[in-house]
Amino acid sequence: MRIYDIIDDKRRSKELTREQIGFWIKGVVDGSVADYQSSALLMAIAINGMTEQETCFLTQAMADSGDKADLSAYGDRTVDKHSSGGVGDTTSLIVIPVMAALGKVCAKMSGRGLGHTGGTLDKLESVDGVTTSMSESAFFGQLDTIGLAIAGQTMKMCPADKILYALRDVTATVESIPLIAASIMSKKLASGARNIVLDVKCGKGAFMHDLKSAEKLARLMVDTGLKAGRKVSALITAMDEPLSDYIGNSLEVQGAVEVLKGRTDCPLYEVSKALCVALLDCEGAGEKVDEAIRSGAALAKFSKMLAAQGADEDVLDRPLVRSKCKIEIFAAKSGYVQSVDAMKIAETVLALGGGRNRKEDEILPHVGVKTDVRRGDFVNEDDQIATMYFDKYEHVALAKEVQDAFAIADKKPTKKSFVLETVK
Amino acid sequence: MRIYDIIDDKRRSKELTREQIGFWIKGVVDGSVADYQSSALLMAIAINGMTEQETCFLTQAMADSGDKADLSAYGDRTVDKHSSGGVGDTTSLIVIPVMAALGKVCAKMSGRGLGHTGGTLDKLESVDGVTTSMSESAFFGQLDTIGLAIAGQTMKMCPADKILYALRDVTATVESIPLIAASIMSKKLASGARNIVLDVKCGKGAFMHDLKSAEKLARLMVDTGLKAGRKVSALITAMDEPLSDYIGNSLEVQGAVEVLKGRTDCPLYEVSKALCVALLDCEGAGEKVDEAIRSGAALAKFSKMLAAQGADEDVLDRPLVRSKCKIEIFAAKSGYVQSVDAMKIAETVLALGGGRNRKEDEILPHVGVKTDVRRGDFVNEDDQIATMYFDKYEHVALAKEVQDAFAIADKKPTKKSFVLETVK
Repeated sequence: MRIYDIIDDKRRSKELTREQIGFWIKGVVDGSVADYQSSALLMAIAINGMTEQETCFLTQAMADSGDKADLSAYGDRTVDKHSSGGVGDTTSLIVIPVMAALGKVCAKMSGRGLGHTGGTLDKLESVDGVTTSMSESAFFGQLDTIGLAIAGQTMKMCPADKILYALRDVTATVESIPLIAASIMSKKLASGARNIVLDVKCGKGAFMHDLKSAEKLARLMVDTGLKAGRKVSALITAMDEPLSDYIGNSLEVQGAVEVLKGRTDCPLYEVSKALCVALLDCEGAGEKVDEAIRSGAALAKFSKMLAAQGADEDVLDRPLVRSKCKIEIFAAKSGYVQSVDAMKIAETVLALGGGRNRKEDEILPHVGVKTDVRRGDFVNEDDQIATMYFDKYEHVALAKEVQDAFAIADKKPTKKSFVLETVK
Repeated sequence: MRIYDIIDDKRRSKELTREQIGFWIKGVVDGSVADYQSSALLMAIAINGMTEQETCFLTQAMADSGDKADLSAYGDRTVDKHSSGGVGDTTSLIVIPVMAALGKVCAKMSGRGLGHTGGTLDKLESVDGVTTSMSESAFFGQLDTIGLAIAGQTMKMCPADKILYALRDVTATVESIPLIAASIMSKKLASGARNIVLDVKCGKGAFMHDLKSAEKLARLMVDTGLKAGRKVSALITAMDEPLSDYIGNSLEVQGAVEVLKGRTDCPLYEVSKALCVALLDCEGAGEKVDEAIRSGAALAKFSKMLAAQGADEDVLDRPLVRSKCKIEIFAAKSGYVQSVDAMKIAETVLALGGGRNRKEDEILPHVGVKTDVRRGDFVNEDDQIATMYFDKYEHVALAKEVQDAFAIADKKPTKKSFVLETVK
């Protein structure tokens, strides 16, 4: 078997076999396939696509390319979630504690933020003392004692995905549904949970801009997971407005803590609850989730997790957000809020230093935006609509960008649900 | 400008600008564009294509990427030819001496053989003492005194093409009409001749298998050359049967010398003459070419060139082919020759050691095949139809492959011309 023929076949839109895909992925990891050959093959896949069968083979080969977490000791209680990346999306910080409170075991491996989307690891580490780098024994010890842990993926897990993702990032081959599906699902398979829920974001602030692409990605990931013997479902959720009122690392933790403390009348809870219900998949699931919040059990799990990962036990009683400056943003005119542009706010937070343009960038954990109004709310000119938190005074002019993210007009827009569809 | 956006544009089938293509090619040569980025872009081009305009920009950028031969001292007398690669194709060894005999200046830069096609440099160097590596001053000195020289391209000419060709060779992106056209024409532009004729081979023994692809390639190359201010035309010629009765390095030189000594009743002369006529493009061109052969002027030019490049002056009076063994091949049955499979014979010569699988391979210059019959000839069972020349006795079994290359049946096939079409 030669990598040349594999590239040539995909160039001509032929379906690759399990053996061909396995040969490629093995070669990626052992170095016998050169980067320039993988990037040519990735481009051929990005243009000519992959069948569901090929995507399954690729997912499995990448999952098998390195270490895998063995969660078999926990039986069917293991759960995991994944979001395709949105703005103000802190559902992990709610779903994981709720599920742990309900007796599930949550061994969540997350990533860092890149571009306009935030990363769970960065958010958690904005809390004083918290680390997401831990030894394998500490990770499993934490699962045994409190049932939840959120950590970075080890370098030994899915090495093929790491190499290929780095190549895709510099060769314009990130936007490919089969490649996105295989990248996400290989990590989920290697992470070991039996029950998986996927949150596929759809809209202006997401990688998938239209419902059709989002459905295709969700369907492909669910089928790939089912074929690998896992219980998997997916929600397609709206990502035009920020999901939370808080955008920025420590701000988003604060927003999640508000929900865990009982604020359930917000889209962040709507989506978090739906993800938990999909994972539980049983009679009365919704009430169980509400009760985990109402009783404070979920908040207690979150607090224990932070403490186990290095924070003081009373950290949630002290202010989480400590930027040097803040400025109030006012409505430019009277009327109904037509939309809050998630992408524009995310880019502003990135410009404030709250995100990364490149992997090696340092972030400012306390900068960001808190919004006070949403689509459908009525505002008078000069009402406060948001607050911008920043560390460098030269960034003050970005307040105008935040103001511009709010589109205001006379007509009252209709309300929309954030959960658009369930795929299972 | 970023290479990422250029790759992304081509992935989405957008037309690239002159500036984008120039940025890429500059980056290829100075190393600022990584190999894995170029290979992704090459794959996007191979799948999504390029417009004529883009192909012209790419050709010019590659021609400008290194040194260019300055032939302006010779005015409009400079001629050049290129063949897209066939089997038994020694037209260069006839066209160049004929044109020199007719007062033209021929500064021909050729390549080595790779895969099933032979290379003019290898053929010339099969002649005792001949070298195709010469200094710039020796090359121009030879043009001044005898009007013809055939040499290898210097490393400094079209460096971008060399880098990209090496990448295409290992990433399954060789077969792309715009990339083939740009690669060929950039070298022709850098080589400096005012008048260029292209021989686009079409058939089972060529890279272009069908007339439509061959026409597309010919049209694109002619238009690219015309836009760059050169006089260019192309012939599309058949490559199902070997063009010459001789296949193999020193064998092919012997076949060319036979023509130069006056054997004009063969396809090799038919195509060579048509190429010369296309270059001359004047009244009575055909008679001039015939006269250059008849008078011995072309043979004298060839002999002088060999001597100038290191051979003894009487080298053409001695045997050129000196393999250790030879074996006669007989017809397997009686009937008309339906076809002689050029590809099968070429692969046999490659297996005998007469060609290269990889660039670094050494070749055996004297092995090969001489055919005695062509399509349309009648043969009796056990008539001699060919001779195989070989150096290693374990190769004797390949004689069966040579026999199998001749398809024999009862019905007499119609004769076909080798020159299929002219594009200008």
